[in-house]
Amino acid sequence: MTAYEIIAKKRDGTDLSPEEIKYFIDGYTTGIIPDYQMSALLMAIFLKGMNESESQALTYTFLHSGQTINLDRVPGIKVDKHSTGGVGDKVSIILAPIAAAAGVPVPMISGRSLGHSGGTLDKLESIFGFRVDYNVDEFIQKIEKINVCLIGQTSELAPADKKIYALRDVTATIQSIPLIAASIMSKKIAEGIDALVLDVKTGFGAFMTDHEQARKLAKTLIRIGEDAGKKTIAYITDMNNPLGNTVGNWIEIEECIDCLHGNGPDDLMEITHQLAGTMIFLGEKADSIEAGIEISKKMIQNGAAWDKFIQIVHEQEGDMGIIRHPELYPKSKYKSDYHSPMSGWVESINAYEVGMTAVQLGAGRQKNDDPIDYKAGIRFYKKTGQKVEKGSLLFTIYTDNENIIEPVLERLSHSIRIIPQPTSPPRLILNFIDKSNL
Amino acid sequence: MTAYEIIAKKRDGTDLSPEEIKYFIDGYTTGIIPDYQMSALLMAIFLKGMNESESQALTYTFLHSGQTINLDRVPGIKVDKHSTGGVGDKVSIILAPIAAAAGVPVPMISGRSLGHSGGTLDKLESIFGFRVDYNVDEFIQKIEKINVCLIGQTSELAPADKKIYALRDVTATIQSIPLIAASIMSKKIAEGIDALVLDVKTGFGAFMTDHEQARKLAKTLIRIGEDAGKKTIAYITDMNNPLGNTVGNWIEIEECIDCLHGNGPDDLMEITHQLAGTMIFLGEKADSIEAGIEISKKMIQNGAAWDKFIQIVHEQEGDMGIIRHPELYPKSKYKSDYHSPMSGWVESINAYEVGMTAVQLGAGRQKNDDPIDYKAGIRFYKKTGQKVEKGSLLFTIYTDNENIIEPVLERLSHSIRIIPQPTSPPRLILNFIDKSNL
Repeated sequence: MTAYEIIAKKRDGTDLSPEEIKYFIDGYTTGIIPDYQMSALLMAIFLKGMNESESQALTYTFLHSGQTINLDRVPGIKVDKHSTGGVGDKVSIILAPIAAAAGVPVPMISGRSLGHSGGTLDKLESIFGFRVDYNVDEFIQKIEKINVCLIGQTSELAPADKKIYALRDVTATIQSIPLIAASIMSKKIAEGIDALVLDVKTGFGAFMTDHEQARKLAKTLIRIGEDAGKKTIAYITDMNNPLGNTVGNWIEIEECIDCLHGNGPDDLMEITHQLAGTMIFLGEKADSIEAGIEISKKMIQNGAAWDKFIQIVHEQEGDMGIIRHPELYPKSKYKSDYHSPMSGWVESINAYEVGMTAVQLGAGRQKNDDPIDYKAGIRFYKKTGQKVEKGSLLFTIYTDNENIIEPVLERLSHSIRIIPQPTSPPRLILNFIDKSNL
Repeated sequence: MTAYEIIAKKRDGTDLSPEEIKYFIDGYTTGIIPDYQMSALLMAIFLKGMNESESQALTYTFLHSGQTINLDRVPGIKVDKHSTGGVGDKVSIILAPIAAAAGVPVPMISGRSLGHSGGTLDKLESIFGFRVDYNVDEFIQKIEKINVCLIGQTSELAPADKKIYALRDVTATIQSIPLIAASIMSKKIAEGIDALVLDVKTGFGAFMTDHEQARKLAKTLIRIGEDAGKKTIAYITDMNNPLGNTVGNWIEIEECIDCLHGNGPDDLMEITHQLAGTMIFLGEKADSIEAGIEISKKMIQNGAAWDKFIQIVHEQEGDMGIIRHPELYPKSKYKSDYHSPMSGWVESINAYEVGMTAVQLGAGRQKNDDPIDYKAGIRFYKKTGQKVEKGSLLFTIYTDNENIIEPVLERLSHSIRIIPQPTSPPRLILNFIDKSNL
């Protein structure tokens, strides 16, 4: 078995054995197999695919390249939620306190913003002092204490995936279902969860723009999860339009605070309750997803989710004052409103364009180490399906970069389509997939 | 235009522009684009292919990465022959003196053995003192003086191809028609030739085992050659069986000496005269290929080709004594005969197996810098189509490595199939292709 032979096999469309996958990935992680052979194999995998057993073997090789968190000390069925990423997707920050308040332990390892998509970690870090860099022992202790903790990927979990992801990022091999699936599932299995809810997004603002590809990814993720003994349920959800009314970092935390107070926008709360309800069901705190959704709503109404959020911020060393008085947060130097040039109905808001303009405003990053302006962002006053009058306020942008205001207003104005006929809001939840309907 | 975008385009099957190809190849050659991005692009090219204009652009980018030899000082139409490589393929060493003796200037840049295939340079270097490392000026001077010179690739010609070839060799991306075509044709165009004869081999002992792929390669080579203003004719020839009766280095030079004296085996001389005759036709020293073949035969009969060979050895500093008295060449420590276990007819001799056992005997190399034992090799006494009696001598092996004798005899005995019914020798010249029948 040589690296060359393994590349040639995959190049010719032959399935790789678990031993071959392990030999190659371990060889790369330990530095025996060079970057240029790994990138040739990645391109061959991208173009020739991998079957289910290859995807599983890849997942386990990533998983076993690092440690696995043992949450046996925490009683109950541990459930996490993973989203494939989008624009305005702040669901984790609302849903984690809901599920934890409902008695479901939530060990959550999240990601950062990249390109047009936002990142839960960056949003949380916009809260002064909020830490997401706890080590595995501290992570376990906090879940034991308050039933939930939200951190970033630690170097102990799936280091092979981390090294390979960096290479995929510069060799145009990110968008491969088996590679995406192994990357997601190795980290989720390493978390020590018992069950997982997946939000696989599709549309302009998703990484998987094609609906059929999103379904394929969801099914691959479920097969790997179920095979590993984790109950796994996936939703395909719409990401043509941004989720909620805000896109940025602190501005999205403010919206989460509103949501936890019962004042969240319809689209965001529909997704949040569906996913949180499913977590509550999988955590065996409800007999059905529908019953779980009812509990989720109750956790908002009775203030338990808000209390849990306060506990999280306190436990993760965030500034409590700014959470209780968000109006005191520093303001962007520039704020600019955009008014509708015509009357009509909002037909669509292009989530990809919104995400990219948020990056221009300072709210995101194009490269891994770009700095973020937590104050920057966009607030929408009208969403898809709503009626607008000529001159009514459509959105406001916030930035410290004066030069970018005009081009961003111009670009955003083109990303919103207003038509003279009434339209409906988009259907948000497109598919439910679990092991029974693969 | 970024390296990433170019990789992604080819990955998705989109044609690359000449500017994109030049940007990427030049960026790689100058060290701006790293190995791992080049190897991702190579695998994408391997799996998605390139159209004719991309192949041409790649060829010209390779070509212009180095210098082009100017042979204007040499009168006449300069013609070279290129073979895609095989086992026992010593044609260049017989054909170059034939064509040069017939008045056609032959600027020939050849390769070394690799894997199962032999290399003209290694065979020539088995002649004591024979040099193949002349620089471009010396190369031109020698062609001016004796109408022919045989050297190895210089670092001045197509350096981009050299760097990329080394990367292809370790990333399983050698066997790609556009990559092979650009590699061959950039070096041939750089030689300063006016016309080219191609011997594209197919069968077990060829790099292109599949006949249809060999035809595709030949057509691509012709299109690039003709586009560059070089008259180009290709033959697809059989490489299921080794060519001639010897496989090795000095042992093949001995066979070339026999051929030049008019005592060559039928298969080897059929290919040699066809290719040499075509060179003589392209060099406008004959009105047709058939007339060229007659001249080629005459050059052997009247001793002009032998005289030219002597001139070449003298001019390239080879030992004249050993050429005139080949029986004085050092002998291998071990020599072992193999006799037929049955009577019948030779149905086939697997050229790949023969090539690989020649490497085991010491005659070839698995890696670029492996040493070669020039004395080692195999001599066949019966070829495909010939009748054998039980106990008659089939082949002799020569080696300094005692341990390898038994396994090589065993492996070679399995590579020769003897059957009880009469068979015919293989048809050697399978296709003639020029610009009129693309």
